[in-house]
Amino acid sequence: MAFPTKVKIVEVGPRDGLQNEKETISAEVKIELVDRLTDAGFINIEAASFVSPKWVPQMATSTEVMAGITRKAGVIYSALTPNMKGFEGALAAKADEVVIFGAASEAFSQKNINCSIAESIERFRDVAQAAKQHNIRLRGSISCSFGCPYQGEVSPESVADVVRRLKDLGCDEIDIADTIGVGTPRHVQKVMERAAKEFPLAQLSGHFHDTYGQALANIYAAMEVGVSTFHSSVAGLGGCPYAKGATGNVSTEDVLYMMNGLGVETGIDLDKVVDAGQFISKHLGRKAVSRAGNAIAAKRAG
Amino acid sequence: MAFPTKVKIVEVGPRDGLQNEKETISAEVKIELVDRLTDAGFINIEAASFVSPKWVPQMATSTEVMAGITRKAGVIYSALTPNMKGFEGALAAKADEVVIFGAASEAFSQKNINCSIAESIERFRDVAQAAKQHNIRLRGSISCSFGCPYQGEVSPESVADVVRRLKDLGCDEIDIADTIGVGTPRHVQKVMERAAKEFPLAQLSGHFHDTYGQALANIYAAMEVGVSTFHSSVAGLGGCPYAKGATGNVSTEDVLYMMNGLGVETGIDLDKVVDAGQFISKHLGRKAVSRAGNAIAAKRAG
Repeated sequence: MAFPTKVKIVEVGPRDGLQNEKETISAEVKIELVDRLTDAGFINIEAASFVSPKWVPQMATSTEVMAGITRKAGVIYSALTPNMKGFEGALAAKADEVVIFGAASEAFSQKNINCSIAESIERFRDVAQAAKQHNIRLRGSISCSFGCPYQGEVSPESVADVVRRLKDLGCDEIDIADTIGVGTPRHVQKVMERAAKEFPLAQLSGHFHDTYGQALANIYAAMEVGVSTFHSSVAGLGGCPYAKGATGNVSTEDVLYMMNGLGVETGIDLDKVVDAGQFISKHLGRKAVSRAGNAIAAKRAG
Repeated sequence: MAFPTKVKIVEVGPRDGLQNEKETISAEVKIELVDRLTDAGFINIEAASFVSPKWVPQMATSTEVMAGITRKAGVIYSALTPNMKGFEGALAAKADEVVIFGAASEAFSQKNINCSIAESIERFRDVAQAAKQHNIRLRGSISCSFGCPYQGEVSPESVADVVRRLKDLGCDEIDIADTIGVGTPRHVQKVMERAAKEFPLAQLSGHFHDTYGQALANIYAAMEVGVSTFHSSVAGLGGCPYAKGATGNVSTEDVLYMMNGLGVETGIDLDKVVDAGQFISKHLGRKAVSRAGNAIAAKRAG
């Protein structure tokens, strides 16, 4: 596959990034963050999660956030929907895309939701059908595609199996996610090439974590086998729940810096993303977890 | 060129990493750091700098450090030597390799040492001849090979020109260094391929900084064009003097994690490097600037 000349960056900071923050972040701040990201040029922003506030209190403001953001035509605002109740919330909030999910690791699935991978995906059939019925985009996300905190290794075949199941539910896009950040470049290429035998490469995305510093090398390697959609999180929002104090989502600023250097088109204004990253980090009372973001901010400060 | 199955990692933490630390670090601590790195399996460690203590006070202990370390047969302990006085110091301290240096940027050379690149390299002729005479390995380091804080862009031709000059002085190894961390993968490949037209690829090394988070992707890209020697710094020691608060040298732990994942042989024990990184970081009173190092340490702590 040809190295892409253009990539789609899905900004996941407002949802995946912020969801584990302990301190409650007001809807106003989240709205400003999403609006800044819209203004920076993203065409897909993961903005909300319609999950029980008992489980993820930080996402309790999702309806308010979705109602408060200034939408731009053509931009997809995505919401995580763990079940039909979540779907109803996302539908009412006018989400453009709903996200369902499963793990590529049997141990992870059993430990986290007490059922098999196959059962966990099957439980999304109603959400998937409802999404189709309402003409809402459907995205499927596969966690632990490169390793699992419980079982260790995860085979490309296990990932391919979940890709097939999500395809069967009608997903428009499928994320291959490295939840614990253990993937390295050749491994990434193997998994992506295997997944592409089950689902169109143009609709596969790479979701990499920088826990071991590998994310950017992995994105570059994935591009070499033709992947052209990647997730990233402004200011590197989102830690790693499996290694306290370790980094999580790859930072959007680092990804954009690489894309700009490679001459790969993103349509996104890096300077505005740096501003958004400094805005939310200041609000959270800590330094952004983005090397490019902090370097650019430091350079500006002189 | 074939992707290497084996790489040489030159550990630069004890010299390049520590040289800008404000607080004086005792010779004892530096000796323990070098000994830990030797024990971890490195075959080349940049351990000292025989430069005027007026300019780099942190390196004033170099003679003591070189005398105090426990050397292992076959391991090259390198020292920076800016002039003949430095060379005499390195010779007396039994350095296995001396390092001379120049910039690929005319503006940087003028601004920093008030002479042209050509003149600055020529000034090392006596050091180079003395090294040959004493059968000491000679390494040449080219800073600003991918960009310059003063002139901005630096062309592959400028790098090639400095490579030729260093080759003419008899260098056994030449470093292509991204001093301000602005390189991205394709750019790195172009520069490395151009340099390899002047000097054997097997004797070229890549010295990358993680200022913008690009270092690991750059190393991977350099390997794709056959580069098999890389510099890195334990715990990511060494900041960026051109962007205060930004990161500098790529961390050895992150590099080793990638090499292990790629199945590329290094001969180095990552766990021992993590220990060395935690040791020096604890001594410096701050968290290591290594994603893999911190993730592994966090995992150990449970």
